[in-house]
Amino acid sequence: MKKQYLLAPGPTPVPPRVLQAMSLPIIHHRAPAYKAVFAEVREGLKYLFQTREEVLVFASSGTGAMEGTVANMFSPGDKVVTVNGGKFGERWGQIAQGYGLETIVIDVPWGSAVDPGQIADILAREGDVRGVLVQASETSTGVKHPVKEIADIVRGYDQTILVVDAITGVGVFELPMDEWGLDVVVTGSQKALMLPPGLAFAAVSQKAWGFNRQATLPRYYFDFAKELKNALKGQNAYTPAVSLIIGLREVLAMIKEETLAGVFARHERLANATRAGVQALGLELFAPASPSNAVTAVKAPAGVDGQDVVKVLRDDYGVTIAGGQDQAKGKIFRLAHLGYVGEFDVLTGLTALEMALMDLGYEVGERSGVRAAQMILRAGN
Amino acid sequence: MKKQYLLAPGPTPVPPRVLQAMSLPIIHHRAPAYKAVFAEVREGLKYLFQTREEVLVFASSGTGAMEGTVANMFSPGDKVVTVNGGKFGERWGQIAQGYGLETIVIDVPWGSAVDPGQIADILAREGDVRGVLVQASETSTGVKHPVKEIADIVRGYDQTILVVDAITGVGVFELPMDEWGLDVVVTGSQKALMLPPGLAFAAVSQKAWGFNRQATLPRYYFDFAKELKNALKGQNAYTPAVSLIIGLREVLAMIKEETLAGVFARHERLANATRAGVQALGLELFAPASPSNAVTAVKAPAGVDGQDVVKVLRDDYGVTIAGGQDQAKGKIFRLAHLGYVGEFDVLTGLTALEMALMDLGYEVGERSGVRAAQMILRAGN
Repeated sequence: MKKQYLLAPGPTPVPPRVLQAMSLPIIHHRAPAYKAVFAEVREGLKYLFQTREEVLVFASSGTGAMEGTVANMFSPGDKVVTVNGGKFGERWGQIAQGYGLETIVIDVPWGSAVDPGQIADILAREGDVRGVLVQASETSTGVKHPVKEIADIVRGYDQTILVVDAITGVGVFELPMDEWGLDVVVTGSQKALMLPPGLAFAAVSQKAWGFNRQATLPRYYFDFAKELKNALKGQNAYTPAVSLIIGLREVLAMIKEETLAGVFARHERLANATRAGVQALGLELFAPASPSNAVTAVKAPAGVDGQDVVKVLRDDYGVTIAGGQDQAKGKIFRLAHLGYVGEFDVLTGLTALEMALMDLGYEVGERSGVRAAQMILRAGN
Repeated sequence: MKKQYLLAPGPTPVPPRVLQAMSLPIIHHRAPAYKAVFAEVREGLKYLFQTREEVLVFASSGTGAMEGTVANMFSPGDKVVTVNGGKFGERWGQIAQGYGLETIVIDVPWGSAVDPGQIADILAREGDVRGVLVQASETSTGVKHPVKEIADIVRGYDQTILVVDAITGVGVFELPMDEWGLDVVVTGSQKALMLPPGLAFAAVSQKAWGFNRQATLPRYYFDFAKELKNALKGQNAYTPAVSLIIGLREVLAMIKEETLAGVFARHERLANATRAGVQALGLELFAPASPSNAVTAVKAPAGVDGQDVVKVLRDDYGVTIAGGQDQAKGKIFRLAHLGYVGEFDVLTGLTALEMALMDLGYEVGERSGVRAAQMILRAGN
């Protein structure tokens, strides 16, 4: 028996009470029992997204809601700005280009956040940008982008909306949709929402609904207006992923019990401990200036391949973390701390990491990442 | 306590061993443990679809794979034929029109199957039809369309493909993709596949892959070529619905144990018993000439509203069946017998139906739908 630990940035561990709720016999999605669940879910999602707007729910992975947002907000030839500083920023560009939009791509070095000033300059210079598409948390690099500052800029333009992929942002750190004036906020089920993959979400502002009414790109399965119409009647346009919705009710109840503020504080504490732990081992953060509380990307030390760290942790210790993707492959590894995680998940990750680094010939010596993390995670802190 | 019975045409009951498999702790979709599951699933799907081709898997409901098929096979302005004889046939038309295709719609009275001769005439007359889009089983009316006969016609046209929505066909009755020459076959998880909703499937012939290479409609999440490329490497393009895939492995193992022939024979027997049962009660089938083995649509008798039958069964007896949709609302009700169902599910449905009809003032008298079904379901038959 090799006991398994999941510390990757999605899927994240599913709480036992959620697994239990989802393993009850299936119910019909047009039956009153389902409608009661969905009504509760709709309310819980508004709390989670900090919005009065409806949060649309789709049976898909997060990418589906990203594509749906492009198809529902824009028309062929519309000009949008995307931030290419990681795999998911790149994805906004690919989707937009695939749908025939004109994209202005801001290239940002992987590991850095976008400078809001660059966005301000482009909006002022071009005059006809329809959308700014960013990540709240770029999962591939562990960077947190300055969404609030970007929102402050975009709000000044009636003809421009801000679209935020917050797939590893919602439920991790503060992203109050209505207060900040975010126009479309997208997330997925398998991150801070502590569910298996298979649900995607899009919250849509009134400004964005105005865009939707003018948008001519084709859409059917991800038809936001149709989904809204159905949601207001308490149902879904197409057969929903019933068991995941049942799990979602449970998860949203857990978040409400902990309170959003409590959830954010827990993630911050775990992220701080992780960062302190890896730095105490002499390792460097990949995103030191603007790290996300969802996942900590760490540079592999000289002489060690980041993929080997992932492999040893998985094969020899039963701990699943994530490696680098694309241009960061081999150069970094990523320890996640979002969702159903606590102090001892972070400490498990660090103890395992110390052993794996020793196995790979890295000189750990007297350094202790665990101790550095403990000092942050001790009761009372 | 009111014990609940689910006899609707999707979602269908999920077998306990599948619920159990899905409630195990989540695994990471890039880990070897997942790859082993997915490899098994890919093989099992080929057996289920009776094909040597790859069966693509999406996290979405069936409609997503229908839209994906249109977006991956055609280009703006392409001419396609759709069969409008129910809600789902209508859906092909809506999707095709939404994507700017030219549609030739064959209107068929609800409850009837399409005449293949009409399709032959249109293909010959037009000369440039790119696709024929049909349902194997039109769930809204309980009709089985003559897919084999249509395939025999379409095969004669190099520049035309046959797209089959087999969402309540695959795993219910014979639909051998390769033998009949079907080009795209779509299904969903919550029907004969005995899983919760949230997975959609598309099997694609070599002829259809040729179409895919020429198709210019925009797609990203449902990008068939990208999904194929990933599948051949044993993975998914985007985060898969891991827990449903784990359940799918279990379900495919169950189907293999029963054998496809056994699965089809069971569905036929249960469908025959249901039809005999309702007719013995003096009720009329809505699709007498070409009934589907997935679901039996029954005309509500004079003086009884079909929606009341559904309501009494659900509220007073805990039995969930389906009513009519759109133009058939109130006129019919639908008893499903697909997926994880056996003799006593059908008999439960009929005993409950008899009581509900009595409650609604229908003169049941000495008639017994149960006895008629028993005569078909007795051991040895």
